[in-house]
Amino acid sequence: MKTIYTADHHLHAPKAELSFGKFVPPQESPRRADTILAELEQRKLGAILPPETFDMAPIHRVHEAGLVDFLAGAHQEWSARFAKSGAEVPDALPLSWPVPGMRRIEPRSIFGKLALHAIDSATAITATSWSAARAAADVAMTAQQRVAKGERAAFALCRPPGHHASAANYGGYCFLNNAGIAAEAFRTGGAARVAILDVDYHHGNGTQALFYARPDIFFVSLHAEPETDYPYFSGYADEAGEGPGEGFNANYPMKRGTDWRSYGPALAHALGRIRIFAPEAVVVSLGVDTFERDPMGRFKLASEDYRRMGDMIAGLGLPVLFVMEGGYAVEELGVNVANVLEGFEQAAR
Amino acid sequence: MKTIYTADHHLHAPKAELSFGKFVPPQESPRRADTILAELEQRKLGAILPPETFDMAPIHRVHEAGLVDFLAGAHQEWSARFAKSGAEVPDALPLSWPVPGMRRIEPRSIFGKLALHAIDSATAITATSWSAARAAADVAMTAQQRVAKGERAAFALCRPPGHHASAANYGGYCFLNNAGIAAEAFRTGGAARVAILDVDYHHGNGTQALFYARPDIFFVSLHAEPETDYPYFSGYADEAGEGPGEGFNANYPMKRGTDWRSYGPALAHALGRIRIFAPEAVVVSLGVDTFERDPMGRFKLASEDYRRMGDMIAGLGLPVLFVMEGGYAVEELGVNVANVLEGFEQAAR
Repeated sequence: MKTIYTADHHLHAPKAELSFGKFVPPQESPRRADTILAELEQRKLGAILPPETFDMAPIHRVHEAGLVDFLAGAHQEWSARFAKSGAEVPDALPLSWPVPGMRRIEPRSIFGKLALHAIDSATAITATSWSAARAAADVAMTAQQRVAKGERAAFALCRPPGHHASAANYGGYCFLNNAGIAAEAFRTGGAARVAILDVDYHHGNGTQALFYARPDIFFVSLHAEPETDYPYFSGYADEAGEGPGEGFNANYPMKRGTDWRSYGPALAHALGRIRIFAPEAVVVSLGVDTFERDPMGRFKLASEDYRRMGDMIAGLGLPVLFVMEGGYAVEELGVNVANVLEGFEQAAR
Repeated sequence: MKTIYTADHHLHAPKAELSFGKFVPPQESPRRADTILAELEQRKLGAILPPETFDMAPIHRVHEAGLVDFLAGAHQEWSARFAKSGAEVPDALPLSWPVPGMRRIEPRSIFGKLALHAIDSATAITATSWSAARAAADVAMTAQQRVAKGERAAFALCRPPGHHASAANYGGYCFLNNAGIAAEAFRTGGAARVAILDVDYHHGNGTQALFYARPDIFFVSLHAEPETDYPYFSGYADEAGEGPGEGFNANYPMKRGTDWRSYGPALAHALGRIRIFAPEAVVVSLGVDTFERDPMGRFKLASEDYRRMGDMIAGLGLPVLFVMEGGYAVEELGVNVANVLEGFEQAAR
C-alpha cells in the first residue's frame, strides 16, 4: 500500500495547547506524523509519495466559503491586533462563542470571527497552520485519486487531522475535514455510494454533520460515549441521520475501558452494515487513540488488535482509503498505525 | 443613597484570566469592588449596609435549574477529576462547546457540563465562586427590597457582575444575573412594568435574553457595537424583542471612540423611551467601562460625564436600583461610580 506524505505538516506546530484550565505542550504535535512515517519506512510497507497540489474545488464541496476564507486569513488578522503593542503574538485562540439566544453572524472583529467558527479553545492557529491544513487536504486527495483509479488501498498520512471539522466550524485539532473531502471526491468521481468508517476514539462530529442528511455517504463511527468524552454533544447511539439521510448514519458509542473483546464485535457489526450498504469505496478515518496507553483515550486496545482491525476492514473486499486522524501515544503510534495497514495488506493479498 | 455591600465578593478571585491566547492577571478582580467601597465611604454618600440572605426562589425565577445546579457543584466535580493525580487544581474553565449540528444535552463529564453552560473561556470558576455569586444576588435583592419598600434609590455593589448571564448560560465574568433577578423581584412584588437600563460598555446579552419575549420588562442598552466588541453575537440595533415582547427591547450600539457628545444624546433618547414605557421602577446595570482610560472598553467618557449620567437618570423621577456591572480602570473606578450616584442624588433632591 502506498502512503502519501508531506513534511509540510510541520507548518502546523502550535506553541501550547489549552487543556483543562492551563496551557500544556500540544498532544497533537508534528512528532506524531514523523513517528508514523519512520515506522512505515522501516517496515517497507510501500512507496511513500508526495501529494499533488489540488485547487480549492474539493475543499469548497464540503466546507462553507465563510470557514475557508476565515481560516486562510485568521492568523494575519489576529496578529495585526498585536502589531501596535509590539508584544509577542500568541497563537490564535477563541475566547468566547455564540450560545442560543445569540445570533450566528460573522462580526468584523477577528476575536468574534474566532468565536463564530471554533468549536473549542484547544485548537490554536499559527501563521502557517492554513498551509499545513491545505497540504493535509492535498495528501487526502492524492491518496483518494489513487484509489479512485484502481489501487486497492492507499494511506493518506494527514496532519493536522480532520474529522472534527464541519462545513462551518473547525476545532478538535482539525481545520479541514480530510476524510470528508476525500469521500465527496469519490462521489464527484462517479461513485454512487461511499462509506466512511471512523475508528478514532473521539466521535467524528464534523464528518457526521457534513453528510447527516445524505443517503449517498454512509457515516459509521466507533468511539467513546459522548456522555464522558469529547465532543460531548455528538455521537450518541440514536443519531441515525435525517431527511433523505435517515438510516445512513450509525454510531457505536462505547464505554471507557472498552477492549478488543467488545470492540471487535462492534467493529464486525459496523462492517456488516457497510457491506449491506454496498459502497464503491470506503474511507477509514484512522485514529489510534483507542490504544491502551494513549494519553487522551480511555479504551484498552493493544497493538496487536490493530492488525485485527486491518484484517477485518480488508474482509470487506472493497477499495479503501485510510486517512490519518488522532492517536497521541507518540512512542507506539507508528507501530499501531502500521499494524492496521499491514493487517489489511496481509488479508487483502 | 444607601449601598448594599459584602466582603464576600472576595470569595471569587480566580488566579488568572484567559485573554487573547494567554493567561493574564484577571481584569475582573476583588480590588474593583474594594476601590468603589473606599470612594463611597470617603464621600459619605450614605450608609453601607450588609445584604440579607435570600432563599433560591428569586434566582430560580430567572435561571434554569440546570445552570444553578451546575454552578453550585461545578468546582467540586472539576477538582475531583484532578484528585487522583495530586496535581494542583486549576480554576475551572471550559475547553469546548456545542455548535450547530450538535445536541444541547448535559453530559455526565464535568468538562462537557462546562462546555454546555459557558459562553466563554475567560470566566474561571474557583472553589468559592458560587458563594460569591450567591452573595452578589443577595446584595441585589437586598437593595431591590429597599427600593420596592419606598426608597428613591439604592446601590447594589454586586461582584461578580451579572448582565452576561442568561437563563441557561454563564460567562463574561457573570454567573447569576443580579440585575435580572432584581427586575423580576420588582414584578413579583407587584410592579406592573420594570425597565432595565444597561450602560455597561458591553451589551448585556444575558439580561436581553431573559426578557426578550416579555412586554413587562423593557430592556434598554447602550454599548459598543457587537461587530467589534464582546459579546459579538448580541446587541445589534435591530434586536427589538420577539412575540409579546416585540417593541420592548432597545439597543443603542455605538462605535469605538464614542464620547459624551454622542453618548449623551443616545442616553437621552433611551431615557425618553423608558419614560414612555412608564415603569414603576428602573434597574440600572451600572458598568463604567465606558471610561476613557478603561483597559477593556474603547469609549471616551470622562469622569465628569458620569455625574451627567446620574443627573439624567434622576430626571426620570422614578425609583432606581443601581446594580454594579463592569469597569476595569481600577484607579478611577470608585470616582466614576460615585459620580453617577452623586449626580443622581444631587438631581433627585
